[in-house]
Amino acid sequence: MKLYIGNKNYSTWSLRPWILLAKSDISFDEIKLPLDTPQFYTALESVTPTRKVPCLTDGELTVWDSLAICEYINDTYLSGQAWPEDPQEKAKARSLAAEMHSGFSALRSEAPMNIRAARMVTLSDAAQQDLKRIEAIFTEQMMQFADHGGWLFGQYSIADAMFAPVVMRLRTYQIRLGEMAQKYVDHVLSCPVLQQWIDAALQETEIVAADEAGEPCQE
Amino acid sequence: MKLYIGNKNYSTWSLRPWILLAKSDISFDEIKLPLDTPQFYTALESVTPTRKVPCLTDGELTVWDSLAICEYINDTYLSGQAWPEDPQEKAKARSLAAEMHSGFSALRSEAPMNIRAARMVTLSDAAQQDLKRIEAIFTEQMMQFADHGGWLFGQYSIADAMFAPVVMRLRTYQIRLGEMAQKYVDHVLSCPVLQQWIDAALQETEIVAADEAGEPCQE
Repeated sequence: MKLYIGNKNYSTWSLRPWILLAKSDISFDEIKLPLDTPQFYTALESVTPTRKVPCLTDGELTVWDSLAICEYINDTYLSGQAWPEDPQEKAKARSLAAEMHSGFSALRSEAPMNIRAARMVTLSDAAQQDLKRIEAIFTEQMMQFADHGGWLFGQYSIADAMFAPVVMRLRTYQIRLGEMAQKYVDHVLSCPVLQQWIDAALQETEIVAADEAGEPCQE
Repeated sequence: MKLYIGNKNYSTWSLRPWILLAKSDISFDEIKLPLDTPQFYTALESVTPTRKVPCLTDGELTVWDSLAICEYINDTYLSGQAWPEDPQEKAKARSLAAEMHSGFSALRSEAPMNIRAARMVTLSDAAQQDLKRIEAIFTEQMMQFADHGGWLFGQYSIADAMFAPVVMRLRTYQIRLGEMAQKYVDHVLSCPVLQQWIDAALQETEIVAADEAGEPCQE
């Protein structure tokens, strides 16, 4: 299996299937391409019709889009265990994953993932609404699962993979959530597999200007 | 089962799970709420945390977001048959569904679904790129499946449900695609179940100003 990803500092979509694979101890070749460069588009030309990352190839098979890749991995390598077993929880986990997949556009554009930076940003009302919803999700799930595994549904699931990038945004822009929600944030940040991604991001030197938002924090 | 939806004239997200349920002959109660009204938000307050449509309730269980609802229906009522059986085709169908779920934002904002209207619209470069991608998807799938069921993967799948609204946009804004792609559009438009949705949309009188784009066509 080959997973094509973008810069670890910036590529939120790439982080999702990467962390699901890595957390699940599934072996894969990582092909990292610098976002927004001719090399990026050339390399992806013969791989995926969208010329976007992430893209997974598995033998003859190609899957693109973060959520489709996560579902594929779950079906093919995890016997369905990357969703909660309980049908009610599974439906909720899928709802949250899909909500993240198509939503939160204000927060996403105003507070881009930029792992090596520490910034301050003034959020619009729409982005603050997004943030409130994130906080409500984390709080609600931690009320139920903080002491039963610590992930959104206790055990690690695709929902956690989908929300990993937003946790990185909170870290970059120094946004602290309420106590229960922050428990989840801290739990995610203490994950050694995520730390490997962060460490790699810190080694990167490429700049994607469009993703450099906010003002540097005062020391 | 109750499916909460918005106005049939405008609500693209609602159309997706509705048509999957209706095409699959699964019985459900439809609860239609007028978009962007106090009544809409009040009715959804106790139903879904996002206060958006579509939302499905099934006994104690709640699923929101169009794609999550489709996956839930497939798991629970269709024994997985709403995705192609072949793993390679299934991965592709999921990729296309997810691509539609999070993408095509320029086309979506410039050419809103507005079933009862016939309009002309000048599309930006970004929206034209979206349209080219739509055409490429339809063409590629029809090369393989036009004579084997006529849906994107031959038999009806969640991918077709996800792309139904874009077909309605093409119809409203009088956009014709190349021959093979247009075959798919015509096949979708000839579907009696979609026609029921269209007939209901034509009975609606509510106006959502934000979704009224383009200039009326000259007779």
